[in-house]
Amino acid sequence: MKTYLECLPCVMRQALEAARHAVADPAIAEETLRRAAYAVNAADLAVPSPVLIGTVHQMIRELLGEDDPYRAAKESCNRNALRLYPELKRIIETSTYPLETAVRIAIAGNAIDFVVDPDADRSDLMSLVELALAAPLSNETMAAFVEAVERARAVLYVGDNAGEIVFDRLLIEQLPAYKIAYVVRGRPVINDVTMSDARATGLSDLVEVISSGSNIPGTLLSRCSGEFRARFDQADLVISKGQGNFESLDDTGKETFFLFKAKCLVMQLHVGCRIGDLMFLRQKSA
Amino acid sequence: MKTYLECLPCVMRQALEAARHAVADPAIAEETLRRAAYAVNAADLAVPSPVLIGTVHQMIRELLGEDDPYRAAKESCNRNALRLYPELKRIIETSTYPLETAVRIAIAGNAIDFVVDPDADRSDLMSLVELALAAPLSNETMAAFVEAVERARAVLYVGDNAGEIVFDRLLIEQLPAYKIAYVVRGRPVINDVTMSDARATGLSDLVEVISSGSNIPGTLLSRCSGEFRARFDQADLVISKGQGNFESLDDTGKETFFLFKAKCLVMQLHVGCRIGDLMFLRQKSA
Repeated sequence: MKTYLECLPCVMRQALEAARHAVADPAIAEETLRRAAYAVNAADLAVPSPVLIGTVHQMIRELLGEDDPYRAAKESCNRNALRLYPELKRIIETSTYPLETAVRIAIAGNAIDFVVDPDADRSDLMSLVELALAAPLSNETMAAFVEAVERARAVLYVGDNAGEIVFDRLLIEQLPAYKIAYVVRGRPVINDVTMSDARATGLSDLVEVISSGSNIPGTLLSRCSGEFRARFDQADLVISKGQGNFESLDDTGKETFFLFKAKCLVMQLHVGCRIGDLMFLRQKSA
Repeated sequence: MKTYLECLPCVMRQALEAARHAVADPAIAEETLRRAAYAVNAADLAVPSPVLIGTVHQMIRELLGEDDPYRAAKESCNRNALRLYPELKRIIETSTYPLETAVRIAIAGNAIDFVVDPDADRSDLMSLVELALAAPLSNETMAAFVEAVERARAVLYVGDNAGEIVFDRLLIEQLPAYKIAYVVRGRPVINDVTMSDARATGLSDLVEVISSGSNIPGTLLSRCSGEFRARFDQADLVISKGQGNFESLDDTGKETFFLFKAKCLVMQLHVGCRIGDLMFLRQKSA
């Protein structure tokens, strides 16, 4: 999908948050905002917003002279999420429909914004999980998902954030591991998953983990590696986590299930949901 | 006060709102956001944020080829507020301390953002008035205000928005009219008061109305006319409405009472209040 005008102030807000999170020097914080405004001024609105967001974050990394300013935050997110793992695993295994429960927990993992609140109380996190367990997801989409996983030969599971990846692992543990490749970003960008998160959370022991080659917080095929595009062509099913992946994978014509929380007004404009809704959407094969 | 980094995404958000409000052509709406980003990129952060906001709105007026894109909205705000006038007048006249009640109602006028909701229900508006009547304002500031008005020879009452001006009139009716000049912007900018609002709401029949010469949504003396600066020098008391006037008049060294609703995080950072607080602040004569 395209970048909406509504994305432009939001990109500036994200640049401010990044400056406040990652930048100690006030002069560099100011320069961050000025350069973000420059990028917004020149933005290509025909491509999805993760391209612009990726540009801003690359600029921040260059200003800071640091390749991964969110490394410590991501490690903390993964540790926090791993502490919830045993309880979440028990919820799945004792439920009537473990696969459906695991889908809901994977969506909860996207709804929990670990970076916003890396030290969130365990009971607060679990109440977000409870919300996802009770969310009104489409039975029809759920049935189609079960059938599509059954039928597929090669599944790409496109990850989104650190912390959330532990919730992805819980869903992947309910799927036939041999069919699945878990996709991480090619370079660090914000708190998005990279190979080291897959290792730190044990996911790389369960399934193949591949890089998309993307350095934006999304998976726009034209910005991925040729190697990844070949894997994408071979896959017959995609499981896509998070809004950034939805924004960039929503017109591939590939059978895809999108699991995410709708985080902004643009989703309301584009999909017709409300902000905060937990989404489980199917894109049928073209 | 200076422009905070927090102001920069907010200016973009305001540009988006302006584009959505005033611009029908999508290409011009996009150009509005791009040029706003250009202005943000080049912003002088040493001056108050109304300067940047003024720049963005001037640019919007130029793009639209229209001098006053908010004219109809302002007229509607004035009409809505005038409908409340008799009830508000009765509240003031039947209260134990009419001047204090009128101060609170003038603050309520700033809290009611008519432009956000020009067709707001009468009972919704009156419940905002009730909030202002019960707000915890400083007794000491109130006493100082009463005494300062008594003592002053020349008072400038610096207005803020259309609609709100009717609430200003109610306060002015409790003050000695011969001392007071009501100050409007020199040019239309957003929904800020100009001479035509003072006429439409009957204020120009009560007191002298003068222009600040300002075309920004605030009153930065260096951006006002020489004529106004002379009047400002002669005045011994300023009553200042709204956050934009506070941001630009908070370091003049002139005895000033600021009446406004704190509308954003920057007020939290700068004054230590919370967003939404109703403010009644005194700046003593230097």
